[in-house]
Order: sequence, then C-alpha cells, then structure tokens
Amino acid sequence: MTQNNSSEALKIIPLGGLHEIGKNTCVFEYGDEIILLDAGLAFPTDGMHGVNIVLPDMTYLRENRHKIKGMIVTHGHEDHIGGIPFHLKQFDIPVIYGPRLAMALLEGKLEEAGVADRTEIRTVRPRDIVRIGSYFFVEFIRNTHSIADSFTVAIHTPVGIVIHTGDFKFDHTPVDGEFFDFQKLAEYGEKGVHCLISDSTNSEVPGFTPSERAVFPNLDRIFSQAQGRLLVTTFASSVHRINMILELAKKHNRVVSVIGRSMLNVIAHARNLGYIKCEDDLLQPLHMTHKLPDSSVLILTTGSQGEPMSAMTRIANGEHRQVKARQGDTIVFSANPIPGNTIAVVNTIDKLMMQGAKVVYGKDQGIHVSGHGCQEDQKLMIGLTRPRFFLPVHGEHRMLVKHSQTAQSTGIPAENMVIIDNGDVIELGKDSIRKAGKVPAGIELVDTSRSGMVNDKVLKERQQLAGDGIVTIAATIDGEGHLFSKPEVHLRGVVSAIERPVLQSKAEEAIAAVLRDRWKDFTRELEGQIETDWAGLQVQIERELHRLLKRELQSNPLLVFLMQNPEPAEVKSTTPTRQRSAVKVAS
Amino acid sequence: MTQNNSSEALKIIPLGGLHEIGKNTCVFEYGDEIILLDAGLAFPTDGMHGVNIVLPDMTYLRENRHKIKGMIVTHGHEDHIGGIPFHLKQFDIPVIYGPRLAMALLEGKLEEAGVADRTEIRTVRPRDIVRIGSYFFVEFIRNTHSIADSFTVAIHTPVGIVIHTGDFKFDHTPVDGEFFDFQKLAEYGEKGVHCLISDSTNSEVPGFTPSERAVFPNLDRIFSQAQGRLLVTTFASSVHRINMILELAKKHNRVVSVIGRSMLNVIAHARNLGYIKCEDDLLQPLHMTHKLPDSSVLILTTGSQGEPMSAMTRIANGEHRQVKARQGDTIVFSANPIPGNTIAVVNTIDKLMMQGAKVVYGKDQGIHVSGHGCQEDQKLMIGLTRPRFFLPVHGEHRMLVKHSQTAQSTGIPAENMVIIDNGDVIELGKDSIRKAGKVPAGIELVDTSRSGMVNDKVLKERQQLAGDGIVTIAATIDGEGHLFSKPEVHLRGVVSAIERPVLQSKAEEAIAAVLRDRWKDFTRELEGQIETDWAGLQVQIERELHRLLKRELQSNPLLVFLMQNPEPAEVKSTTPTRQRSAVKVAS
Repeated sequence: MTQNNSSEALKIIPLGGLHEIGKNTCVFEYGDEIILLDAGLAFPTDGMHGVNIVLPDMTYLRENRHKIKGMIVTHGHEDHIGGIPFHLKQFDIPVIYGPRLAMALLEGKLEEAGVADRTEIRTVRPRDIVRIGSYFFVEFIRNTHSIADSFTVAIHTPVGIVIHTGDFKFDHTPVDGEFFDFQKLAEYGEKGVHCLISDSTNSEVPGFTPSERAVFPNLDRIFSQAQGRLLVTTFASSVHRINMILELAKKHNRVVSVIGRSMLNVIAHARNLGYIKCEDDLLQPLHMTHKLPDSSVLILTTGSQGEPMSAMTRIANGEHRQVKARQGDTIVFSANPIPGNTIAVVNTIDKLMMQGAKVVYGKDQGIHVSGHGCQEDQKLMIGLTRPRFFLPVHGEHRMLVKHSQTAQSTGIPAENMVIIDNGDVIELGKDSIRKAGKVPAGIELVDTSRSGMVNDKVLKERQQLAGDGIVTIAATIDGEGHLFSKPEVHLRGVVSAIERPVLQSKAEEAIAAVLRDRWKDFTRELEGQIETDWAGLQVQIERELHRLLKRELQSNPLLVFLMQNPEPAEVKSTTPTRQRSAVKVAS
Repeated sequence: MTQNNSSEALKIIPLGGLHEIGKNTCVFEYGDEIILLDAGLAFPTDGMHGVNIVLPDMTYLRENRHKIKGMIVTHGHEDHIGGIPFHLKQFDIPVIYGPRLAMALLEGKLEEAGVADRTEIRTVRPRDIVRIGSYFFVEFIRNTHSIADSFTVAIHTPVGIVIHTGDFKFDHTPVDGEFFDFQKLAEYGEKGVHCLISDSTNSEVPGFTPSERAVFPNLDRIFSQAQGRLLVTTFASSVHRINMILELAKKHNRVVSVIGRSMLNVIAHARNLGYIKCEDDLLQPLHMTHKLPDSSVLILTTGSQGEPMSAMTRIANGEHRQVKARQGDTIVFSANPIPGNTIAVVNTIDKLMMQGAKVVYGKDQGIHVSGHGCQEDQKLMIGLTRPRFFLPVHGEHRMLVKHSQTAQSTGIPAENMVIIDNGDVIELGKDSIRKAGKVPAGIELVDTSRSGMVNDKVLKERQQLAGDGIVTIAATIDGEGHLFSKPEVHLRGVVSAIERPVLQSKAEEAIAAVLRDRWKDFTRELEGQIETDWAGLQVQIERELHRLLKRELQSNPLLVFLMQNPEPAEVKSTTPTRQRSAVKVAS
C-alpha cells in the first residue's frame, strides 16, 4: 500500500502486463478517483498444475472499489478484456467504454459469468471523447492492430495529457481500410503530451512490422497449390486474417466451415458488426461439406498454438469426431508459436504430417505477421507524440529495458522514464516521474474445474504430488496405546524400489516405537491422571514416518497419516457417533 | 517383434533418436549378431512429473542380449552415451569402441553406476578399423561437431558399406585444427556407399552452418567492452567454445573460475586428454577470485538452458551461495535456447537484468553457432558419399521429411529412402530398403529420486494428482455393517468450493447408503450363512464416492478409500495382529 503523499501527482498502477505478456490491467488514480484501463487474463506457465486462467491480484482494487469511476477498453483481446468478468464478481464498475467489437465480445462473457448487471457498457467510435469522474477525459484514437476496432487513448488528467498506445503496429495498408489516426496523434504531439505509455512487445526486434496485407499473396499461393482439402488455423481473434482467408476461399471456389468455439464466437460477433464481410453461403456447417469434393472445402479452425483442447490438436491426435487429417490435405498454420507453445505446436505439426497431410508452417512462408510494432514503429510513435515522460509497458523485463533504450535514442532523457513492475505505484507529477511504493501484485489462479481459485497451498501440494506422489498410512491405536493392527500403506504416484509390505512393516515399527516411547502417557491416562495428547502423538508419528519415507524412497512424497482410535464394542450404533473417534489431521 | 524373414538383409533398428532430438540408440543386426551404435538419454517433456531422464525401451535388447557383439560410440554427448550405464545394468556389452574424450566421460559414468565391469572400453583414433563379431568391420572417420573428438563411421556389412554420419557439421576452420576427413569420405564415395544414415537436426535450415570460429570475434568484442566481472555460460560439452573462452580470458587478463558439476567434469577430462589447453594458473577456484578486481575475473558456468538446478539459474534466483549477480557484471549466454527451454532461459535473463547485470544474449549477437549442418551441409555429405540408399535420422518427423526432400533434390530416388520411427525394423537388402515390422520402442522414465523407474501407472497417477489432487477418505465399518464413526476426509491439492465438513457429511451419507443397501449380506453373515464380501463392498463404496467427488468438486481427484473393520475389544494386543483388520485397496 502507498499513502497519497502528493495530491498533485497522478498515480499510475499497473496490476498486470509487466514482466510478462498477458493480463494487462492498469489503474489511473487521482485524488479519490480511479479509472481502469483494460483488465486481461494470462495463461498458466509450467508448474501451475490444473490451472487454466491466471489473473492479477485484485486486492488493491477490492480495497479501493469505492474510488472506481469507470473503465476504458482499448481492444478485444483476451489479455485486455478476459479478466473483466472476474473483477465484476468482486466489485462493480460503474461504466465501461470501449470499441464495438470488444464490447460485443465482453457482453457475451458477462452474460456467461452472470455479472452483466454489475456495470454499464458503452461503445465508442474513433475520436469520441468521454468524461469519467471529475478528473478524467479520454479520447479514443483509431490505431491498427491484429484485431479490428482497436484504439490508442489520450487521457486528459490534471497533470497533463497521458497517451496510452494500447497494442499497436503502424499498418499503412490495413485490411479493413481503417487507417491509424496519425493526424490526431500528431495534433496531441503539437499540443504537448505529458507522458507516453507504449507497447513494448517487439522492442527487441529491429525495423518495421510488415502490414497484415503482406500475408495475402503468400496465402494465395499456398491456396492455389492445394489439391485436396484446405485446413487453416490462426488466432481466433485475428479478424483481418480471417477476412483474407474468407476472401481467398471465395477466390479459389471453396466453401468455409468454421470449427472451434472461440473462432465461431469471434466470427459471429464480427459479422454482426460488419468487421467480417462475407455471403452467408460461403460459410457452411461441417456436415454440408462432406458431399463436396475436397478441392471445394476449406476448414477454418482454432489450435494454432497447439492448445490441448483445441480443434486442430484434436484432429492431430485423431480425436476429433467429424474431421480426420488425411493424404491430400493441405494444413496451414497462419500463426507463429508463442514462446512456450513451440513444443506443442511442432508436435501437432508432426502428428498431422504422419497422417499424410501436407503442413505449411514456419516464418519463411510469410503467412504470419505480428500485430505489434517493432523498434522503428516504436520510434515513430514517440516521434508523432513527442512526450516529455515515457513509460514502457506490455512486455517482459528485458523488452521494457530495450524499449527505454530505443526511447533514449530518440532524445527522451533517461531520467524521464522508469522501468516498472506489476504493483509499482508510479507518481507522475507536473515535473517528475518516479516510483513511489508498491501495492499487492501477485497472481490469482483459476482451476479448470471452475470450482474455485487455486491458492498457494493447493498449488504447492500439487507440485509436490506431481514430483513425488503421496503416501497414505492409516493406523488404529487403542486407548492403551497399542497399535491395533498392521497399518495400511497406500502409494499413489510414488516411485518405490522397495515392496509395499516391507514399507508397511517399517511403518509399523516406526509407529510402535513412538507408542513405546509414550507408554507412560497412556498408563497415566488410564489411571485418569491426564488426557492423552492425541494431537501431539499424531505429530510425533508423522515426523517419524516422514523420516522413514525420505530414507526408504529417497524422495519427499506428501504424507497423509490417519490415526484411528476404536470405540469399545458395546457403544456401536449406526452413523454418526461422537467425534473423538479419530484425531483430525491438520488440513 | 519381427521374425528374421530374410537372412540376406541387414536389419537397422533405431530404438531412439527419431521423431525427437535425444536418446540416439541404433541397432545393426545381421544373422545372429547385433552391434549397437550410440546409446543416449533424453530429457523429460511436460507432464513427465518428477522424471529427470528418459531412456529408450530396451525390451528388444534385453531379449536379444545374447546376440550383442559390441558397440560403437560416435562422440561424447549425453544424447549419445548417457544411456549406456542403464543398458549395462540390464545386459553386458562385450566391447565398446569410441573416441578418447567420449570414453573418458563414459568411464566416469560407468564407475558412478557401478557397472564398469560389465563391458570393455577401447579408444579409437581417426581411420582406425575395428572388427566386431563375424560380420561387421567399422572404420572411424574424423568429423567436425560442437564437441571435440567426434566421428562419422563407415560400417562394412555383408550387404555393403553403411555410413552413419553421427552428429556433424562441415567446419573448414575447426578450433582444434582437426579437419573433417573429406578424403576418406570421398574414397568411400568412390568405392560405393550402399546406404547413408545422416543427421537431420538442421534439415529445416537453408544454407551452411558457420564455423565454430565465427563466434570468436563477437565474444572478443563483448569481453573487451566488459568493465566488471564476466559471467559466461554455454553447454558444458562445447569443448571448442570453452577453449575460445579460455583463450579470450587470457587475452583480456582475466582468471577463470569454473562452476557447475558437468562443466568441471568435462573440462577436467578434456584437459587430461589435451583437448583443452591452458595454464594451470589461468583456472582459479572461486574463493581465490574474491580478492581480485572484478575486471580480472571470468566465471564460466553451466545453466545456458535455464536448467532449474544449474549454477546460472541459482545465481539468477539469488540462491547461489558464493556468487550473486550485481551491477557492473556482464553476463554472456553463449548458447541458443533449445525449443522448450525458451521460457526458462528468458526468465533467467530477466532476473539477472533485474539485479543490475548487463546480459548479452540472442541470435543477433553472433555468440553461438550450431554443431549440426544445415541443408547445404547435408547436400555436401550426400555429394561426397554418393549413397545408393538414404536414411535420415536424428530429428523430429518433419525434419526427417525435409531431409529426405533435400536428398531427393540431389538425385537419390524417393523409393531408395524411408522415413522411419523408433522401433521400426528397416531391412536393407542388396537391392532394396524397406520397413519390415516393429519392435517395442516406448520410453522408460527415470525418477529424480533415483529410487527407480517411473512406469505408466505412476506417471498417470502423478498427472492426475497434479491436475486434480487427491482425496483420502477413511471409514470404520463394524461386522454388522454399521458405519462406526464419521468418516475422515482429507484433501490434498484439491480445489474445493465446499467446506470439508460438508463434504464429510456427504461422504458419510453415501457410505451409509451403500451399507443400508447391503444390509442383508451382513445379517446373513452374522447368521453364519456367508462371508461378507468386503472387497465387493469396498468397490461399491469407492464407486459411490467417485460419483460424489465428481459432482461436488467438478473435478476428478484421485481417491484413496480406507475401509477399516475394528476387532472385538477383548483380542487387543500390541502389533501385529491378524490381517483381516482391513480390506486392502488395490494399489
């Protein structure tokens, strides 16, 4: 937490999107008012077992919910809007302003999550200006990105104008004819921009990012060479790419069948809003294509990143009900693997090839371009806006560092920029930018089971379970401190060189030893002098068993030790009886 | 298994190294004799929880151990020799021929594994010819690769000469002055090569692989710019790279301190054999460097792939006892991340940068080159040997396909090559090459705990444990079929929206329901008519509890259900009593 030690400073508090690509979430705070810019989700990394969604720590927003006046959304990518339903489960957001496509996608999410009533959604168009609270005015500036209807925003604040680029590239030949609003950017540059907050995704890459249109001739060439069926996969949200694929399908006399939930969802919304234009009869359900010759069929599908549950991955694994890859198919990966997905993607490609399909993939094919600007684009953004202060965001640490070096090469002094992390509180004053304190900025993990959040304890247990497995030992100990019978030993996920009966006997010895050690306590209890310290006994036995397992298995499995204490036979009755029957394990 | 249906054919049976990079292991079989070429290990992929080493399925070799006449080793990389100790634990190998460095490294492994007595190790020099069994003569041909003392082999067999390239690139300016033996290769080409078995690692990469020497000027530039300490990481086995780093350290007046077990091991052996040449006083233990100015210190370390336990990773995590990264350090990653390690590597780089170090990494720095030839090198290999038949190996499926296309572009007809997988039996006849059957070729997984192999059952359990956790439920049921007390319920790694007591009561109801359902059996047993079917009861209750968990947790955790049956109080005694106290869970 940070105390508001300067009422003149604007606080900028990123809760996500730094030192990572994903879950972009930024707080702008002035006085007692907060506006949010985007609220995305991220996907789990190795070791986050059973987790499918990663969210930023929302403690700061929960604690300051009363300050929240509204939210701005720059575009409809999951890493910018995917977190909003989870936020709304915890606090209301009076109003959310954003582009039509993003808002359409968001409305679906809010319905699904049952939180549509927790906010008011308003769509904006290029150059719309909205007022949020008493301190903030926001102008929406059309930019170019891989998803249609994307914005850069100019936030008018009491300390000056802050421009947040959102995700951007400079595409001079946009597929949808919607040009980057250079004039408006330049106008702000002329007026004077106090601070530029800019996309760092490709800050390590020299040069310019090619136009989305650059992939058109390459896809055209590949489509024209395809004899049999065409299967094409790309990001579901790449509306421009999808538009080109549909246009090329028509050109090559193929009907298009779309599979994969997210792809169907985006296309439906994009068509409603006119961002995707195609005749109804171009799109056909899968079963309609079965009668058609292979050369008239294009299947557009999700799975460009080898996502386990996606359509393309299930096809590769031969697990897709309607579609099997086969000789004659041409399968096009119109996307580059995101680092971390590489193995999944190449495995998918290999499996498809093994089934006889021709697979077209890889950078040298020219069938994918990034939606983010490279170093020269980043310089151009700075040149157009000429900011006094600079804040690189949307990238891992080394990308932020590189972006700040690029900014310095354009003449912005090093002391006018800061490299920040999630949770940092940046105070932007009239004449200064500085880090001032930190707010909670961990992560919150959501389990695929949708039954709840995965806390650290559960995650640690899962990691230990995954690495070493679990041993369950149950022993019944009577009131006289006798081991009532051979303890039960069960191994799950445990690699053991020794036989289970051997382990069982050793466990028995270990427990018996503790009992002998505590013999006195039991006799004294029988003499009514003391209550046997069952909990203490439990702990002592567990300690011994842990030692035993470490020694015998040379590993560190989880241990569940159940200590039962039988009732005297005469008080038997059907469920439930009184509760001292067993000492509970802390859990 | 495949029956020997053609005694004239040479059988080539790869047990590893295909559809993967790693655990290269190849069987050559003629009549009743087998020779092995290399036996490597691989590293685990996602989901292989707690596994640190992956080995090929050795069933075929175990079953045919009596045929094994000997083994050839091409070079000392882990993916070519790392598996040998594990093979020797299962069967003897009469003799192993290989280069001096590889044999020195191997001897250490065999000592460690206590299997040095299971084989005889003989070192070979360039152009040595050895006879193995009654059918095979092998000539060792010097090649160039990232590790010193590496060989291509010409295997003289009854069906003709088979050349196995091993791992190779064509380095015309080798760091150690040991040139690729073009003359010998060309001589075989002139004599006539029946089949070429060739390295496919870089078959997707156009052009030639640059010489190892190409990195020298770039490292020199970076070293000369470094003000403070230099920390350099590369592959421990990259002897040539290490030689250059040592040479440059001397040039820039820095002493070198080596950390990381594998790095120390390789350097020790390489120095003994003269593959690494440097004065003793250039190498200094870490504590000796503490008194020296930073500008006179170079720390050479493992961890170029972000391996969790490696020195560089521990430095990045601030967990290394003697070395902490700090402002002024220049840290050089003289290696490219292997796909799958990318995330680990960039995270390591970010952490080091956050501690103030300058980190030099990435392809554009020219500080790493591959040890494997690209498409033009592969063509040159074919051009020199002019084989009749061609077998691409050492690569994932799409690399093998690409390599076969490259071979076809040089004029080898498609019908003279086959794309193979691990376990395929390739019959190479005098006039034909074909796949004939398959032998077992799964994988065997070794657990970090070194307490044994991880079988499929254990791995599946670990994956389920990792994804959904485990629920342990213990209930005591007396001879009359009464639930003796409230069951105990313990959750580990389970995400649960409902409280444990609630789950406990629901479990109690479920069990009680089953008992009511089986009420008759118990009364009839009491009347001495039947023995209660405890096992059947166990199964029935488990089924109900599984349903319960799936319903309540919306996930599928492992279940351990312990059913206890108390003895009548009077027969109490200290451990152990008779064994009907509980029904065992299948496990």
